[in-house]
Amino acid sequence: MLSSFSLAEKIIWNQSHKTLRKTTVQLIADRRSLDRVFIRPDDENSKKTLVKYMEQILFGLHDFLNRHVGVTEEISITELAKKYMDVEISEHPQKNLGQVIEDIIQDIAPKAVNVASPYFIGHMTSALPFFMVHLKAITAALNQNLIKMETSKVLAVIERQVLAKIHRLIFKQSPEFYKAHVQNTRTALGAFTSGGTTANITAMWVARNHLFPPKDDFSTIEEDGLFKAMSVHGTDRVVILVSRRGHYSLKKAGGILGLGNKNIISMDVKPDHTIDIDKLKQRVQDLKRQGRTKIAAIVGIAGATETGTIDPLQEMADICEQEQIHFHVDAAWGGPVLLSRTYAHLLSGIERADSVTIDGHKQFYMPMGTGMVYFKNALALDAIAYHAKYVNRKGSVDLGIKTLEGSREAACLILDAALKIMGAKGYALMIDHGIETARAFAQKIEARPLFELMTRPVLNILTYRLVPVSIRKKLETATGEERRQLSQELDEINIRLQRIQREAGKSFVSRTRIKLTPEDDFTVVVLRSVIMNPYTTEIILDDILDEQEQIYKRF
Amino acid sequence: MLSSFSLAEKIIWNQSHKTLRKTTVQLIADRRSLDRVFIRPDDENSKKTLVKYMEQILFGLHDFLNRHVGVTEEISITELAKKYMDVEISEHPQKNLGQVIEDIIQDIAPKAVNVASPYFIGHMTSALPFFMVHLKAITAALNQNLIKMETSKVLAVIERQVLAKIHRLIFKQSPEFYKAHVQNTRTALGAFTSGGTTANITAMWVARNHLFPPKDDFSTIEEDGLFKAMSVHGTDRVVILVSRRGHYSLKKAGGILGLGNKNIISMDVKPDHTIDIDKLKQRVQDLKRQGRTKIAAIVGIAGATETGTIDPLQEMADICEQEQIHFHVDAAWGGPVLLSRTYAHLLSGIERADSVTIDGHKQFYMPMGTGMVYFKNALALDAIAYHAKYVNRKGSVDLGIKTLEGSREAACLILDAALKIMGAKGYALMIDHGIETARAFAQKIEARPLFELMTRPVLNILTYRLVPVSIRKKLETATGEERRQLSQELDEINIRLQRIQREAGKSFVSRTRIKLTPEDDFTVVVLRSVIMNPYTTEIILDDILDEQEQIYKRF
Repeated sequence: MLSSFSLAEKIIWNQSHKTLRKTTVQLIADRRSLDRVFIRPDDENSKKTLVKYMEQILFGLHDFLNRHVGVTEEISITELAKKYMDVEISEHPQKNLGQVIEDIIQDIAPKAVNVASPYFIGHMTSALPFFMVHLKAITAALNQNLIKMETSKVLAVIERQVLAKIHRLIFKQSPEFYKAHVQNTRTALGAFTSGGTTANITAMWVARNHLFPPKDDFSTIEEDGLFKAMSVHGTDRVVILVSRRGHYSLKKAGGILGLGNKNIISMDVKPDHTIDIDKLKQRVQDLKRQGRTKIAAIVGIAGATETGTIDPLQEMADICEQEQIHFHVDAAWGGPVLLSRTYAHLLSGIERADSVTIDGHKQFYMPMGTGMVYFKNALALDAIAYHAKYVNRKGSVDLGIKTLEGSREAACLILDAALKIMGAKGYALMIDHGIETARAFAQKIEARPLFELMTRPVLNILTYRLVPVSIRKKLETATGEERRQLSQELDEINIRLQRIQREAGKSFVSRTRIKLTPEDDFTVVVLRSVIMNPYTTEIILDDILDEQEQIYKRF
Repeated sequence: MLSSFSLAEKIIWNQSHKTLRKTTVQLIADRRSLDRVFIRPDDENSKKTLVKYMEQILFGLHDFLNRHVGVTEEISITELAKKYMDVEISEHPQKNLGQVIEDIIQDIAPKAVNVASPYFIGHMTSALPFFMVHLKAITAALNQNLIKMETSKVLAVIERQVLAKIHRLIFKQSPEFYKAHVQNTRTALGAFTSGGTTANITAMWVARNHLFPPKDDFSTIEEDGLFKAMSVHGTDRVVILVSRRGHYSLKKAGGILGLGNKNIISMDVKPDHTIDIDKLKQRVQDLKRQGRTKIAAIVGIAGATETGTIDPLQEMADICEQEQIHFHVDAAWGGPVLLSRTYAHLLSGIERADSVTIDGHKQFYMPMGTGMVYFKNALALDAIAYHAKYVNRKGSVDLGIKTLEGSREAACLILDAALKIMGAKGYALMIDHGIETARAFAQKIEARPLFELMTRPVLNILTYRLVPVSIRKKLETATGEERRQLSQELDEINIRLQRIQREAGKSFVSRTRIKLTPEDDFTVVVLRSVIMNPYTTEIILDDILDEQEQIYKRF
């Protein structure tokens, strides 16, 4: 019955027990069965089977996730791991598509994380609009490779257009600018990446490469390497400045680019977790005075991963302009807020950046694995251009010569379609809902005596912790070592609370560590909540707080 | 009618012309319509619409691609570009999902590249087995983020298992080894990446980081940077050795890692395009004698992108073992050949590598955007481990701490399912078909007086060129400048031939440049053919050669 995808099926009848019993379905890989895997089946029955499978994926899976509104089944990773120990690749087919789908719905999905649950408010992953599944299926069906015009053609043109649309949303350049660059194959307004991490790495890569001009027999960092660049230019150290709220991909960038992640300098933040501008100014002057040190970039954050904080981008842009330092804004999280008429102003100053990171799989609600990096200067990406004889000939018009990644899928098609289906306003509805619900959540937390709001939401992220009344009272007057000890007590409570709630599987908030005040030399554990699911209502938020109170009372 | 995905639809009747005419469908973004985008429609009609859309994607798109067996519509990129100049993001929704899908089938697909066509034999992109579209839809529907257990749970466990399966295919370690590591959260057998490029970069990153031990106040390259590492250790230069057939991502690795891409040394090849082992040995000794130079890695190629060549991996492994140099094998293309009982022996020696790159979107026939990197030593990836407080706490058990990429989709689920559906034997059928068809193609080329076989297929890739009889005769005796001039004449003919055939859109071979003999100081243009579509028959290959002859005759 499911023969269309089984490769081939033979039912072996075991007659040894005198009864006709179906003991096993043997799947065979042969040319005929291979044909069925590649070519769509001609008969209506097989076609129906394929559609039925897709229906199972669309509704079976979705119904399951909706029914189990909780986050995951209560089973430990250790228990799970025991079932996945076999490391042999079977010589013969083991399952057909129907069985695979059934397994996924029945066995995998319940033990995966239901990120679509409105009770999942712990990470930057959420429900996707339904149409995203269709769009992803289309990109798989077309299987274009955007590395090259020869494997993408119109998609390469669409990619340029979408990049220009988002570039304009960020940098607001003139109509002439976009007319000159949108389809200019010699320039690039940005690039699609596999995520915010490689977007940030790409931006820092470009910034690094612009640091040292040719001198003597030194040509470029890209060609001659960092050691020669620094030797010839009498530099000992290349640094990048970012607040302590910076994403760890910036440290990773420092490591991979050869700068050393110690040289990604974590700047102090103010009590509201934005970068301390005075200290930043001071540090830039100190570094300049030291000599033999170059600042590759200053990074502003537009939506800190832990707290949602937005740095004072205008003031940072002033410093960068004055000191001629590359200004990068990591808007992986906050970028799409530019689509909201109500809240776009929060990102004021982003238009003055040299480069900007935005994630597709965060607040553009695209499927996992889509980042973007944008450059104000349409020639900036030339600093990392690569050519391959068989793929990108010199003078090539392919965008793939200017990306960290090589082969990549047509993520542009998904974003292009999503912008058309949602409109800026559709996205704004979700952005606004997240911000406003987070504010309401903050009020709830403040209204409950057992909780303490730790960071107020600027966007749709906040942190808080559970503080028993007895400890709260002691904390009011505690100083020094006593204060630290009380904090540790609270840390243990909140770690335990988060773990029990996560393992129970009904709802999920994450946890992290932040400093209570900039002056502290220790961090404290906080619960972290990200509101990006339009179905996360205030009632649900009350449920989550109720559950936490109950868990604590059962301690 | 299509209301379920239109956000909201209102039909405005234009009565001014006295006739009821549907002039425009206005789509509105409001909370009610947003709900419809996220929640599956409850009524049967809307449900049917969604399934119909998926049916269109599965069969409408597929039928279209099958009907138009050619590669693409005849339209120039310049003409195409003119239609994609608008850079404004619409405030309101412009299209519903149905319209988007219709556009894609009617307007985008014909102008994309039909990589599924059996006449498309120019790049490493091909038809996908049908079930891949279903599997991709599943990963989108589940939307797990493999960066972290908290956003993937069972998928993280499945990822470990699949990595172990492929690790075993490559390195053939003992059952005890896999029992110890398959689900060991402290070690890692490899990582999924966005492609072969980031896989190669990851391998070179690890190799670079292992080069310099702690000394004085220097700790690691990752922390302190390359300049300090090299200064403290008295090193001027870090190089990587690979044959000239090496993929350009290795140059990119040299650039991004700060080594300088000039220090990715292109080694000469023998007439069969494998690395010249004697010269490699010599170069290693020369570099050692020079002092102040360190060799980060020697890279063997298992399936060169241009020629399909496989380097003598055993002999390279001998050198690396003796000299204690990191041995990386770039098997992005050839890796899955290990699944073929007939041809796996061609990769003999790969089991001695320290690290191996394999692409999922090449001969594993997975959708675009899946690479993998494997390390024999389960602790090797520790050299690039990163932690984030809110994502991966210290001592974290998440695989995401040891990858270049951050967030990433559950590609492991697709590979796991594909291995079960196909079995090793199903993949072997395709591998064997490719190799054997390429051999038959080589015979055809040799049998035609107008063509010259340039590289014989070891795997399923070959190169050839069109050589008019008059030039062929002259070439037989030509030397020096005359030989070079004849070569240039041939280059022009083959460039023109390839371009005309590509633009006609019926079939596609790519072109590249290689040296005729290792001694030449110039390269020549060759046509490059990659046989990976099970429907590329000998008849089709004859068609393609016929077309090329006809194009040439019309010159």
